[in-house]
Amino acid sequence: MKKITLLIHCKDQKGIIASVTNFILQNSGNTTYIDQHVDAQENVFFMRLECVFDQATFNTENFKNEFGKKIGKPFEMQWQLHPATQKLQMAIFVSKYDHCLYDILGRYNTGELNVHIPFIISNHRELEHIAANFNIPFYHIPVTKDTKDAVEKEQLELLKEHQVDFIVLARYMQIITSTVINEYPNKIINIHHSFLPAFVGAKPYHAAFARGVKIIGTTSHYVTEELDAGPIIEQDTIRVTHSNTIPDLIAKGRDLEKIVLSRAIKLHAQHKCFVYKNKTIIFT
Amino acid sequence: MKKITLLIHCKDQKGIIASVTNFILQNSGNTTYIDQHVDAQENVFFMRLECVFDQATFNTENFKNEFGKKIGKPFEMQWQLHPATQKLQMAIFVSKYDHCLYDILGRYNTGELNVHIPFIISNHRELEHIAANFNIPFYHIPVTKDTKDAVEKEQLELLKEHQVDFIVLARYMQIITSTVINEYPNKIINIHHSFLPAFVGAKPYHAAFARGVKIIGTTSHYVTEELDAGPIIEQDTIRVTHSNTIPDLIAKGRDLEKIVLSRAIKLHAQHKCFVYKNKTIIFT
Amino acid sequence: MKKITLLIHCKDQKGIIASVTNFILQNSGNTTYIDQHVDAQENVFFMRLECVFDQATFNTENFKNEFGKKIGKPFEMQWQLHPATQKLQMAIFVSKYDHCLYDILGRYNTGELNVHIPFIISNHRELEHIAANFNIPFYHIPVTKDTKDAVEKEQLELLKEHQVDFIVLARYMQIITSTVINEYPNKIINIHHSFLPAFVGAKPYHAAFARGVKIIGTTSHYVTEELDAGPIIEQDTIRVTHSNTIPDLIAKGRDLEKIVLSRAIKLHAQHKCFVYKNKTIIFT
Amino acid sequence: MKKITLLIHCKDQKGIIASVTNFILQNSGNTTYIDQHVDAQENVFFMRLECVFDQATFNTENFKNEFGKKIGKPFEMQWQLHPATQKLQMAIFVSKYDHCLYDILGRYNTGELNVHIPFIISNHRELEHIAANFNIPFYHIPVTKDTKDAVEKEQLELLKEHQVDFIVLARYMQIITSTVINEYPNKIINIHHSFLPAFVGAKPYHAAFARGVKIIGTTSHYVTEELDAGPIIEQDTIRVTHSNTIPDLIAKGRDLEKIVLSRAIKLHAQHKCFVYKNKTIIFT
Repeated sequence: MKKITLLIHCKDQKGIIASVTNFILQNSGNTTYIDQHVDAQENVFFMRLECVFDQATFNTENFKNEFGKKIGKPFEMQWQLHPATQKLQMAIFVSKYDHCLYDILGRYNTGELNVHIPFIISNHRELEHIAANFNIPFYHIPVTKDTKDAVEKEQLELLKEHQVDFIVLARYMQIITSTVINEYPNKIINIHHSFLPAFVGAKPYHAAFARGVKIIGTTSHYVTEELDAGPIIEQDTIRVTHSNTIPDLIAKGRDLEKIVLSRAIKLHAQHKCFVYKNKTIIFT
Repeated sequence: MKKITLLIHCKDQKGIIASVTNFILQNSGNTTYIDQHVDAQENVFFMRLECVFDQATFNTENFKNEFGKKIGKPFEMQWQLHPATQKLQMAIFVSKYDHCLYDILGRYNTGELNVHIPFIISNHRELEHIAANFNIPFYHIPVTKDTKDAVEKEQLELLKEHQVDFIVLARYMQIITSTVINEYPNKIINIHHSFLPAFVGAKPYHAAFARGVKIIGTTSHYVTEELDAGPIIEQDTIRVTHSNTIPDLIAKGRDLEKIVLSRAIKLHAQHKCFVYKNKTIIFT
Repeated sequence: MKKITLLIHCKDQKGIIASVTNFILQNSGNTTYIDQHVDAQENVFFMRLECVFDQATFNTENFKNEFGKKIGKPFEMQWQLHPATQKLQMAIFVSKYDHCLYDILGRYNTGELNVHIPFIISNHRELEHIAANFNIPFYHIPVTKDTKDAVEKEQLELLKEHQVDFIVLARYMQIITSTVINEYPNKIINIHHSFLPAFVGAKPYHAAFARGVKIIGTTSHYVTEELDAGPIIEQDTIRVTHSNTIPDLIAKGRDLEKIVLSRAIKLHAQHKCFVYKNKTIIFT
Repeated sequence: MKKITLLIHCKDQKGIIASVTNFILQNSGNTTYIDQHVDAQENVFFMRLECVFDQATFNTENFKNEFGKKIGKPFEMQWQLHPATQKLQMAIFVSKYDHCLYDILGRYNTGELNVHIPFIISNHRELEHIAANFNIPFYHIPVTKDTKDAVEKEQLELLKEHQVDFIVLARYMQIITSTVINEYPNKIINIHHSFLPAFVGAKPYHAAFARGVKIIGTTSHYVTEELDAGPIIEQDTIRVTHSNTIPDLIAKGRDLEKIVLSRAIKLHAQHKCFVYKNKTIIFT
């Protein structure tokens, strides 16, 4: 069986589900799972379908042509098709913190993440031994104010060369500029160590401590040009008390960061995130 | 617009989604929302559809006949159709505890629950004033060992007379026997004050205290003949510590009981619960 | 046995715990429970003690005099003494939303809250029937821009007359000005329907929806002159998804508001909240 | 400054806190933090004190002698003294699952755990490379039914040789017998992948799936001779749905297991767990 995932969005209108599932049936396929959502404010329909076809007779290019002509065009859809067997190429950027990296690679080893990791980039050498232990190529690319531009070009070359599909900033302590963002729109996943929109920017645990909050949070979001303001993929929170110091908050936060970032990676890798007007639709 | 909800389950097979949505389209309707699930072990397909039709031309009986003939029969489906405007009749059974009752009636007043409450039954008079404050008929039907049988018959008469669709046991401290259960299969919702299957039966907070658990829970489930063993609809948990006494557990538990029972009521009232072989499929 | 609670804070220094507990022992008392905290940044020591004395021989005024002279003065303490039997007088202010009011009064009836409620004030009549059902005096005091000043004076008179210890704003949709705040510093508890400091001010659920957060929260805090910026007592959060509309967020939020406000009331009523420099120390 | 932790339990009686803190003060020390608990059913008092002394003049042996004579004996206390600088020796036992091991070693590297890890024991070789990457000695000690007895003796020798204080079973898939348990009473920490007391024994995720629970949990407890029945240190839970397969439960459970086991390790390493009659008092 050939399994594919279809992602669709278009103006909400009558007959979309029936037409798409019927087209699949007429092409000897079967729809096995549908998620859908209507944004009532924007009048937009979103759908994610999983369907299966006969391996012997299914031709992806033919299907795409026919689908585009008979369904995509009439409904004025934006759509994508992803074969289930095709793992996304996921690059990891890190600096010196190792907790997210260990967590991601541990899950990668267990087969929990449906991705392939072609390499890890870091502006420091501290985590090189981890990459080695997991047999993943490691590129040490230091960054300074003056070299920022050249560095991003070097990064882009590596990304293109390995046909990277999306980038994970696993506590990469550098701003990503539009040079890279524009090449990977809604394809760079960051983990910000606060419950956004509270405590945007640097040192959010210090800010949370100063405000005396009773709960801290972590947010995974797509990177856009405005700092920590991109579409939110996933968040989680944990209780803190007056007796927790800033290092305590940082330690508690590490547990959140690992889990929230990994959830976001899984959702993206399974094509379960739509982005529309700076918000996400997440099919879980 | 006429809005209906369709509930379907049948052997998993090719073409179900396409056939159903296409049938709706051919009958001038539009499928607006689908939830579905395949139980891979049992090879059973479950689907809940929301669809809309033209108020002027839609005829429910005709639709049911046609759907049964052209879709239900060929696919050997079990199916139900519920008009969205039709509120279920929900009876409440209570004893002396008022927290769940206040919570349900508060939500009822706010319009949060898509039900109509024709009456409250209690084996005590303590909560009669609450029923009065919310203008809901209250039947005081005391129960003793000897009158149990007669009482259940009296209850059944009231339930039939008001065409009750489902029953909520809001801390009703009496066993329901098969006399009532058989008339309301998977239509009696209980709240058990433990995280089932731990601490079945009486005094679960005492048992939780004795075991020294660090978290207590609450479970809402459909009533079956085996005590506290019916299909689970919803559960939730809360932390406790060594310093919590049994009354503390009871007080913390009250908050859980209220919320978990109300969630179960909402799910049932919106036809979002399927029961299959003592487990539930819950479309949220 | 006569049970009292002592609240103490002073510059951190050697021998505080030993001196206080020894003083209690020498006065024929016994310390049964201690909570303490050192704010290392500010070098301030906070302590809450529960102790018991012989009912027959204990004289509160004598104890206070001696304690002040021998312990309070030498350590330059701020301290308070509260007999355990003395329930605080708690006034409730509401507008039209009933969920927090029902929740508070339900707990009040169960004996869960260690307070006495002398009256409820509202700028509307909608909730008067609830006050009546629970046999609590209800004062309808409408507010307009022009009458605001007179209204607050009328409220203050009622508060004084009933010797109110603290005020709970159970979704009271009016700004409290310094006229009242200055008379009740750190004694007015508000419930704000966002996870502060995110979404300060009006319509936080709308703001949360617009930002596309995956979790919403609620915050209970002491009222200060700066809006929604007072010391935080308690917070909690709940998950939301892209499919939740603004009314869904409001409904989910109601459950949080009830629980978070009640927790804050209990903490305050048991003298478990210290306020220091716009942050709280909460002994749970 | 010399910092020590005192752990005390004895029959509840008057003057304990005052006497202990006063004794510390008279020995030129200062009590900086107290946790205490009275088990009202058993009439037992538990206390954990942190106190500081002058490094130059403090003599641990003298202090212990004096404390035993003047406080321990008169109050008939069970007590222990732990210098804060003294890290416990923690042995890890594993089989083939790596998630808990990675998590523990990641935290160990960050300095989050106040322990020293002298070695890892495993009945398999699969995780040897992880031990190597973290520079921790690894002993491969295979186990069969016939060698069980000899194996436990070999393990005990290693434990004694390295003066191991407590043992962590990080998903070690072997039963520990009384041979080892009796040498390490309440000093062997296990992680059981269910919300105990639900689903004792093998394959708890399969049992949870079969029962159709909506929440799964994990429990860390001290190992006693009765399987999965020892004193509970920590638990946590996570939501599951009808759509989660058994592998999904296992994957979700891994996240819980890591966090719950690490919390239990931290509590034990900081001497924050008392065990009394198969329940724990946990000072957090």
